[in-house]
Amino acid sequence: MSKKHTTLTLKYLGINTHKEPVIYMREDCYICKSEGFTAQTRVRVILNERSIVATLNTVESNLLRHNEASLSIYAWELLAAKEGEKIALTHPQQLDSLSYIRSKIYGNELTAEQTTHIINDIVSGQLSDINIAMYLAASGGDRLSMKEIIDLTRAMIHSGQQLSWDIPFIVDKHSVGGLPGNRTTPIVVSIVAAFGLVIPKTSSRAITSPAGTADTMEVFTNVDLSINEMKKVVEQENGCLVWGGSMALSPADDLLIRIERTANIDSEGQMVASILSKKIAAGSNHLVIDMPIGTTAKVRSIERANSLKKLLKTVAEEFDIRTKVIFSDGSQPVGRGIGPVLEALDVLAVLNCDKHAPQDLREHALVLAAHIIEFSPQVLPGQGLSIATHLLNTGKALAKFEAICRAQGGLREIKKAPIVHTVESKLSGIIINIDNRHISQLAKLAGAPRSKAAGVELLSPLHSIVKKSQPLFRIYADTRGELNYALDFLKQGHEVFQIEASV
Amino acid sequence: MSKKHTTLTLKYLGINTHKEPVIYMREDCYICKSEGFTAQTRVRVILNERSIVATLNTVESNLLRHNEASLSIYAWELLAAKEGEKIALTHPQQLDSLSYIRSKIYGNELTAEQTTHIINDIVSGQLSDINIAMYLAASGGDRLSMKEIIDLTRAMIHSGQQLSWDIPFIVDKHSVGGLPGNRTTPIVVSIVAAFGLVIPKTSSRAITSPAGTADTMEVFTNVDLSINEMKKVVEQENGCLVWGGSMALSPADDLLIRIERTANIDSEGQMVASILSKKIAAGSNHLVIDMPIGTTAKVRSIERANSLKKLLKTVAEEFDIRTKVIFSDGSQPVGRGIGPVLEALDVLAVLNCDKHAPQDLREHALVLAAHIIEFSPQVLPGQGLSIATHLLNTGKALAKFEAICRAQGGLREIKKAPIVHTVESKLSGIIINIDNRHISQLAKLAGAPRSKAAGVELLSPLHSIVKKSQPLFRIYADTRGELNYALDFLKQGHEVFQIEASV
Repeated sequence: MSKKHTTLTLKYLGINTHKEPVIYMREDCYICKSEGFTAQTRVRVILNERSIVATLNTVESNLLRHNEASLSIYAWELLAAKEGEKIALTHPQQLDSLSYIRSKIYGNELTAEQTTHIINDIVSGQLSDINIAMYLAASGGDRLSMKEIIDLTRAMIHSGQQLSWDIPFIVDKHSVGGLPGNRTTPIVVSIVAAFGLVIPKTSSRAITSPAGTADTMEVFTNVDLSINEMKKVVEQENGCLVWGGSMALSPADDLLIRIERTANIDSEGQMVASILSKKIAAGSNHLVIDMPIGTTAKVRSIERANSLKKLLKTVAEEFDIRTKVIFSDGSQPVGRGIGPVLEALDVLAVLNCDKHAPQDLREHALVLAAHIIEFSPQVLPGQGLSIATHLLNTGKALAKFEAICRAQGGLREIKKAPIVHTVESKLSGIIINIDNRHISQLAKLAGAPRSKAAGVELLSPLHSIVKKSQPLFRIYADTRGELNYALDFLKQGHEVFQIEASV
Repeated sequence: MSKKHTTLTLKYLGINTHKEPVIYMREDCYICKSEGFTAQTRVRVILNERSIVATLNTVESNLLRHNEASLSIYAWELLAAKEGEKIALTHPQQLDSLSYIRSKIYGNELTAEQTTHIINDIVSGQLSDINIAMYLAASGGDRLSMKEIIDLTRAMIHSGQQLSWDIPFIVDKHSVGGLPGNRTTPIVVSIVAAFGLVIPKTSSRAITSPAGTADTMEVFTNVDLSINEMKKVVEQENGCLVWGGSMALSPADDLLIRIERTANIDSEGQMVASILSKKIAAGSNHLVIDMPIGTTAKVRSIERANSLKKLLKTVAEEFDIRTKVIFSDGSQPVGRGIGPVLEALDVLAVLNCDKHAPQDLREHALVLAAHIIEFSPQVLPGQGLSIATHLLNTGKALAKFEAICRAQGGLREIKKAPIVHTVESKLSGIIINIDNRHISQLAKLAGAPRSKAAGVELLSPLHSIVKKSQPLFRIYADTRGELNYALDFLKQGHEVFQIEASV
């Protein structure tokens, strides 16, 4: 085999497969033939000092010439490739991580080394989406032991950057989620930073929900900051409200979440590792975790909440993180809006102390801020709430919020969605149940979080009395197609509000 | 939204993704924008009466014009699409099967309806590879209950064609596999058909092994027959040796196997459903299952063998199938060759009663044939072996084998691989272990089963005494690249033969 045949020249085709590395080669090319590569073969692609494993898609002669190959955009990025460069191709070695995943499927406990190996292979692009999906499913439910969760957390921390701070006392908050509209973070950060504690808050975008905190904050300001830019904001304002993704904190987490999202799964062990790895990588050492409990929230029972709390506290202790887990009412959405823009409007109303602001959001944010403030050695237990309330009522929290937004790149104007549809009650009676999952679904079908202004606005809270034809909620969408998709969901009989008729 | 914008015209790009339906659309096309489609979105594609759910890959303007879209070759086939036809696109409805898979990940038992729903959605192309992978991983190990395995078997039977026969007495055999070279089927079918029982044998191609029976039989003759062609062969010769894939018997099985293969997993419940659904769909009612047991075979311990046997017999009973499970020695490969051509040569030697034929393969095939023959009401228990031996020794089995091959389309000439490499013993001593998994790996790295002639030929059996430099085995390959890949595996220290030095 002469040397000149072992490389192919890169041609750019511009095919975007999201985060799946794909290589495109001609079925009749020399390398495919000599190496026995066919469609869906996993192929190692080597360029300069870098190498990835990509899935092969074969193409016909209309797209590539002899001696040419192409890559999906993600693979171009992983390899930092340029058109015209020459890649070498081999069979990938048997990946040890694949046998560890298999072992996990068969119910074995993985060692720390095995977990680290899997996570590193995910981050460096060696494992296919199918392999990652199998790892996640095999770890689902309660199939990770405490030791495995700790190992996974550590592996995820080390998979990316770790922030370090000159101050020894760094606070943070996290919400376990599942409760639509529970957008306390911007309010909590503003109060805590106004109090003087350092809270370098990084948030995620939506995983399976209609909006993540980063999606909502992006309505107000730029959230896509480099680590240095973020540090500058925190030095100046004590806090920030940025997207964690651009920080490369626990990058494994983002890759796992990408696959979890396609099946809407979010397992207990993965959840704990995901939460804590981000916080620890961000350098926090004092953490308040908000855990709403409700039949349609992510945590549905007090038993589950206690088990998750124990898991979180045990793993956090292992990494010397002081943690408080705060249970809250998850029986109905918090605030009125569900979707980035609609939630942003709720946040703004609370910070403005607007008398029409959703009181549940205000109170919930104050309680969380109080718990964080009480981490401070100068504050006596029980004092936190009055301190937080004072900072909110005097406008100091609002001023801090605006200062943080300006430091991150300026305050943006909020634009509402062009298409609005109001859903009315079909009967008179009392609202006896609100289905959080169906509301989230509806907001997502309407386009959230991709369409910032899309979502659902709730007009009548749980236990309130409604008349026939009284508006229950509004659906906002950017396009009529998306609105129709949401309406189809309702037409299929999915119930959002359960109303008991008055007699 | 005007009607004319809701369709796109199909353009053929010839991208082969194997069995993953992919749609290629321009990121800036009207539908992507209005529906909010981005790379990796799942999109429902509708053409005439058919519809599938495909994964979106976005492309730039160099590949498609405005109002054009393309499909992966598998998606073209599923939709029976022609270039220039117009497809409609929508968001897929929330798939119920996805919540059932999620439920399985969380450890719940699925109902019959839920399992059927998942299998039907897999066969009709609604679920992505990622979703199928999660279903498989969540069902891995022993995570399917007996009821779930029965439900899965039934769902798989109904997912495709079912053969019916005029004769009430149909026999069949299956090997659980994992033992390289265990190619008894062509011999067993020839003996049993020569005896006069009806054995319409459909076989699979390799799942995780270097050769499936269909791969080996393809060395001899055409195995890709339609149901009618197969029935004609069976009517004429009592038996056949065809590939099951073209029969569309339990097509779900092939789709599951495709994903299992990428991770080399093969779970107990899935295995039972896979084996029995194919046999039942083929109309068999008397089944002998060969189960080799050995530390490196698929079934590693007698406990595991007993549990699998119980599972197989219980599920088979549910479908009124008489089943015998035969345990056999899985401590070393059967025969000498591993890989389609090399195994075919072993089969031919046994049928020819060649004095150099591998005796272990001969004996193993005779035992299995004897058990099948004893299903016959005319045969007393214990008589089977002498009947089978007589049919083999008198050349009647060989004559039947050749008649079957001719009926399937003619006997083919066998071609050996151009590249051969002999591996010699590094020391004098006794062979105390042969690693089946590493031998299979080696044969696969050398190109089997894709390259028919590739594989491994064993020259020294377990427990035999070897001298330094004595040949232990040969590697056959079509290309030097593949040979090198196999040799690299050895260089990495993977042991195939364990030799205890003589003192």
